[in-house]
Amino acid sequence: MAKFQISILGCGSATPTARHQPSCQVIDFRDKLFMIDCGEGAQLQFRRMGLKFSRLNHIFISHLHGDHLFGLPGLLSTMALHEVSGSVTVHIFKEGAHLLKEWMDYFNRNAPFEIIYDVIEEGERRIVYEDSGLTVETFPLYHRTPCTGFIFREKPKLRHLKGDMVKYLNIPVWQLKNIKEGADWVKDDGTIIPNSHLTTEAEPSVSYAYCSDTMFDRRVAESIQGVDTIYHEATYDNSLEQKARERGHSTARQAAEIAKLSGAKRLIIGHFSKRYNSEEILLDEAKEVFPNVVLANEGLRIDLI
Amino acid sequence: MAKFQISILGCGSATPTARHQPSCQVIDFRDKLFMIDCGEGAQLQFRRMGLKFSRLNHIFISHLHGDHLFGLPGLLSTMALHEVSGSVTVHIFKEGAHLLKEWMDYFNRNAPFEIIYDVIEEGERRIVYEDSGLTVETFPLYHRTPCTGFIFREKPKLRHLKGDMVKYLNIPVWQLKNIKEGADWVKDDGTIIPNSHLTTEAEPSVSYAYCSDTMFDRRVAESIQGVDTIYHEATYDNSLEQKARERGHSTARQAAEIAKLSGAKRLIIGHFSKRYNSEEILLDEAKEVFPNVVLANEGLRIDLI
Repeated sequence: MAKFQISILGCGSATPTARHQPSCQVIDFRDKLFMIDCGEGAQLQFRRMGLKFSRLNHIFISHLHGDHLFGLPGLLSTMALHEVSGSVTVHIFKEGAHLLKEWMDYFNRNAPFEIIYDVIEEGERRIVYEDSGLTVETFPLYHRTPCTGFIFREKPKLRHLKGDMVKYLNIPVWQLKNIKEGADWVKDDGTIIPNSHLTTEAEPSVSYAYCSDTMFDRRVAESIQGVDTIYHEATYDNSLEQKARERGHSTARQAAEIAKLSGAKRLIIGHFSKRYNSEEILLDEAKEVFPNVVLANEGLRIDLI
Repeated sequence: MAKFQISILGCGSATPTARHQPSCQVIDFRDKLFMIDCGEGAQLQFRRMGLKFSRLNHIFISHLHGDHLFGLPGLLSTMALHEVSGSVTVHIFKEGAHLLKEWMDYFNRNAPFEIIYDVIEEGERRIVYEDSGLTVETFPLYHRTPCTGFIFREKPKLRHLKGDMVKYLNIPVWQLKNIKEGADWVKDDGTIIPNSHLTTEAEPSVSYAYCSDTMFDRRVAESIQGVDTIYHEATYDNSLEQKARERGHSTARQAAEIAKLSGAKRLIIGHFSKRYNSEEILLDEAKEVFPNVVLANEGLRIDLI
């Protein structure tokens, strides 16, 4: 099975602690790595989890708070020491691109790779990455500062050929890709064999949405409608709902509400306040609203397929 | 006894690893904390070692390589969250001051303390910090980029009063500070009682020199002549002397040579290349030249008094 896996490198908030690193995740999609947010210490977690710098070419930064990006200078400098070549694209709001570029032009000027800055605009919905199998698109979150979420979507997969029919109809090999993509087959005598006779359903395409940091807002659920697995911040428990709103964050219950409203199959919660010595309270609270909840934790890997 | 203690927060080189953090030390001088260098992850090590942000008001950066300063944005931001007030002075080369200020003006603009940038000039020898008991002065190191060392010197201490003499001569209390500082006493009849009759020797003042990063250069030993304890980088073992020179670093043997040449009482070595799974080879090599060598290690505390 093709790989589509999340690695949690950090799921704390505000500041690194003995229990949690600041925000960072890596998506492994068919051996290409995509980093979302890059809190201080991300490079070390990256290596601890056995991930390969040479496979990392895109970094997505949700917003310009330090706990989501202070790991960038160190990560990019270490990638230079590891002689990563080609390019690394950092998808980031404009001021962040400017500030990062200033540091990299000084501290990482001899890097053997190019850093490309892809400027995200506030409120933008745009496909910021695309290859033959995957798209990554932005959507707005609602924090104290401009903030964007990211949806990773597998592209529609190919249908499965019915081998016996292909053989019986003697369809040439060079036509099979079309058939897998849904084309009908026209015999020499003009008879049309509909695709449904030639193939069975493709496996469903899988999707993942990253929602951190944000206050509870139903528009988030609309933006990620139908996504299979969502990561939603759950900084606080429900007793701190007022504080959550004031600070542009969510409670675990609110994260679960978004999962429910969006029709998700699975919810991962993270960005935990350091006040919790155990996040079980957040897990229990979320599960009251939405059954399939996973607590993020450093070192955790979750297969999306 | 008044405190004068080094805490080693990081003693690796280039990049954080599972074994070592990048460079960072904290000097505790009578409960004031002074940080030297601030590699990524310094803030976490600082808290792990039970140090108090509120006591840290001066940070000294030896040079503008990432492994000596990428921890600054996170440290200063966390200090803001901890509501440190007053001021924090960062002693740093000019371009570093500029780059750090740009980041802090954006990411830490609401900090409840002021950040003061004290610009160090290349090659400068200057007292960059002074209080009633301590001076910190710069001196040049010889690396691939401008680099400065720091000498922490206790000021001369007060002599000890001979209580019986003071009582016998009926010296008034308000005169005792002068006597401790070395003044003679003039009796009403004009007789001069020399200070040596009134006091015994003060305890010796203690000093510490930080030398990282630098290639072997005898001028370093001249600059730190007579300092009690020196920290000197020992990135490589002697078999890599050529590489050390090319990269502006030292071997363990060379660090020990500097300790010997400077007349130090104790040498701490650090800034270890990540190629070593154990630094015993570096320790053994240094001890062949200079007997009293300590391997730096994360979490180590060394009393200078």
